[in-house]
Amino acid sequence: MDAARYFDWAATSPADEDVLRESLEEAMRSWANPSSAHNAGIEARNALESARKRAADAIGVKESQLFFTSGGTESDHIPLLSLLARLGAMSQKGRIVVSAIEHPALREQCAAMGRLGFDVKTVAPDRNGFVTAEAIREALTPDTLFVTVMAVNNETGCIQPFEEIADAITEWYGGKRKPHFHVDCVQAAGKIPLDIAHKGIDSAAFSAHKISGPRGIGLLYMAHPEKFKGFLVGGGQEKNVRSGTENLFGAIAFAKVLEKHYIRKGADGEAAERLRAQKEMTAHFIEELSKNSAFTPVPERRTERAGEFSPWVVQASFKGIPGNVMVRALDAKGFAISTGSACSAKKQSRPILEAMGSSREVQDTAVRFSFGHLTTEEGMLALAKAVGEICADFS
Amino acid sequence: MDAARYFDWAATSPADEDVLRESLEEAMRSWANPSSAHNAGIEARNALESARKRAADAIGVKESQLFFTSGGTESDHIPLLSLLARLGAMSQKGRIVVSAIEHPALREQCAAMGRLGFDVKTVAPDRNGFVTAEAIREALTPDTLFVTVMAVNNETGCIQPFEEIADAITEWYGGKRKPHFHVDCVQAAGKIPLDIAHKGIDSAAFSAHKISGPRGIGLLYMAHPEKFKGFLVGGGQEKNVRSGTENLFGAIAFAKVLEKHYIRKGADGEAAERLRAQKEMTAHFIEELSKNSAFTPVPERRTERAGEFSPWVVQASFKGIPGNVMVRALDAKGFAISTGSACSAKKQSRPILEAMGSSREVQDTAVRFSFGHLTTEEGMLALAKAVGEICADFS
Repeated sequence: MDAARYFDWAATSPADEDVLRESLEEAMRSWANPSSAHNAGIEARNALESARKRAADAIGVKESQLFFTSGGTESDHIPLLSLLARLGAMSQKGRIVVSAIEHPALREQCAAMGRLGFDVKTVAPDRNGFVTAEAIREALTPDTLFVTVMAVNNETGCIQPFEEIADAITEWYGGKRKPHFHVDCVQAAGKIPLDIAHKGIDSAAFSAHKISGPRGIGLLYMAHPEKFKGFLVGGGQEKNVRSGTENLFGAIAFAKVLEKHYIRKGADGEAAERLRAQKEMTAHFIEELSKNSAFTPVPERRTERAGEFSPWVVQASFKGIPGNVMVRALDAKGFAISTGSACSAKKQSRPILEAMGSSREVQDTAVRFSFGHLTTEEGMLALAKAVGEICADFS
Repeated sequence: MDAARYFDWAATSPADEDVLRESLEEAMRSWANPSSAHNAGIEARNALESARKRAADAIGVKESQLFFTSGGTESDHIPLLSLLARLGAMSQKGRIVVSAIEHPALREQCAAMGRLGFDVKTVAPDRNGFVTAEAIREALTPDTLFVTVMAVNNETGCIQPFEEIADAITEWYGGKRKPHFHVDCVQAAGKIPLDIAHKGIDSAAFSAHKISGPRGIGLLYMAHPEKFKGFLVGGGQEKNVRSGTENLFGAIAFAKVLEKHYIRKGADGEAAERLRAQKEMTAHFIEELSKNSAFTPVPERRTERAGEFSPWVVQASFKGIPGNVMVRALDAKGFAISTGSACSAKKQSRPILEAMGSSREVQDTAVRFSFGHLTTEEGMLALAKAVGEICADFS
């Protein structure tokens, strides 16, 4: 698959082959168990800690705040499941506040916690796809233990006001014990400028394969790791935050792709420059699509905006053309796109659009174009042209 | 680190560099998300399913019974945590029977389940390190939900009578609903002949990095996946058994090392031949160590035996020499060994020896020598000689 004709970066990204090969060679030189006491183990430990330091520097946090996991899903699960470690068998279970547009790793895991007796409050987005601080504030209660709102939605590209939400939570509880606030940054890292150390954010999840790193490695940021007590336990690796023999290859490769792609708020560099270019390319792409009368962006980007959109994701419906038909027709022309997230590809349901109040027709016809650092303007225009041809064929 | 002087295979094994490099190249050719609907996704899906088929053939189970996970820990957690999915908030919580010599991924996770209200019954091994079917039978109750006993202990090398235990459980419950029986095969796969499809075994955990595969990939076998309902949820990958974008590199590499090293009961081949050779090498090694008056095998291998020992692990104490001193002294001579598992390396505690009723002195002095397919007789004799020199220095 040619990366220039691949427009499903929100599902996964083309591997950075040089980074992966280099990282594998480095990891194979330190193949011992980083938890072993002998010299070979210490060498592997040093390699792991060096990867952690590089990742921490790229993200702008302390290395003691970063924990390697097996991916975004696990980085979402660990803080949520830690609620189970805080309670004895008989304790009162409190409230979990979850936005309706979270990745299933949170949305469905919160529902599973609900079946154990937690009071799960789902907060709907507005019709533009944004979960407002006001909506979160209304869901808070004195017994709320956990709040989770993602940074960038994987289907709409809506950048959620998570900093404002962090501030709102901090304010609501005054000096009192506040709930844990978790931010899923899987679609945000390396895509938009982030300041994850923002006060009031207690944890954040990252995944390597969305930014050309390997699959099977993630990071969990924790603002206050010293306070953390997890429910998932085992060998005690990663300071008891994530048990399991450490994946050194993944850790090294993740550090390298973070250095290349992560965009710290306020910092400049190649990745920030690439983001600026993408903004223009995406605006131009939407302009091209707009010439097509069947096109409607989902949500409507052109009108009233409650927030910002990531330029790396454009969701749109094409009147009368079912989403899966558009995916197949583009596939036949050599372009890869998707209807919503890969995770829900087989389920045929569109929970995020449903939560936004989109019509059944929009749910059936919406498709997602998503971009990455190897995306070219030429490729995007070829995609817009192909979409136009398909619309013409179907009209 | 030279593999011939590495005697800590139970912690992790030297990577099979050719397998890892080849697998990475194959995975990078199919870099799309295996859950995506487009052709690139289907290609990645096919590569994943082909790896699963190869792994299933190597293990002797159906591919529909194998699920890729992030490692042994997760493969242990998934079946145990599924107990949380079976109960509503108010249900009666039943019994969990766990052997005292399990890996912390089970022993400590069972304890965590106990804090949620499950009745956790820990079954001690006999003084030789074996968990007998009789001891498990005594722990069973009509409300027992889960039983777990590992196949090979990571510190003693004792091969547990897990088939006999499976039979005992099946018999105890007659035709009635029996508890789930899970077998941790992390130290057994590729080391001793296994028939994991033995009736009464409901699930089994495997890890790639113990047999020269990559870190960060595991397998979970489930005898009846159609009955499974997990607690950990998310994108729904691996038929809802393990959510998270599939690690194709890991899956391919794991399949390849299973084909090289897995030993199916009754089957012959290079791996079975290597096992026979190791039995002789280990017998010879113990013979050499026995010339040293400070040496005692832990448990006593030479006397009454309740079961079999894996020839890949020898634990021993050397009178008057603390385990960590022996580890460091051998390290200085270029040999890597360990005191017990890497997972407990920092904890200084020896829960398995404690459960076996070993004296404090034995706990303090026991060290573990563990071997793998690259171990040579020459290397083992050099190790025995180095141990002898250290004992002489300390006497």
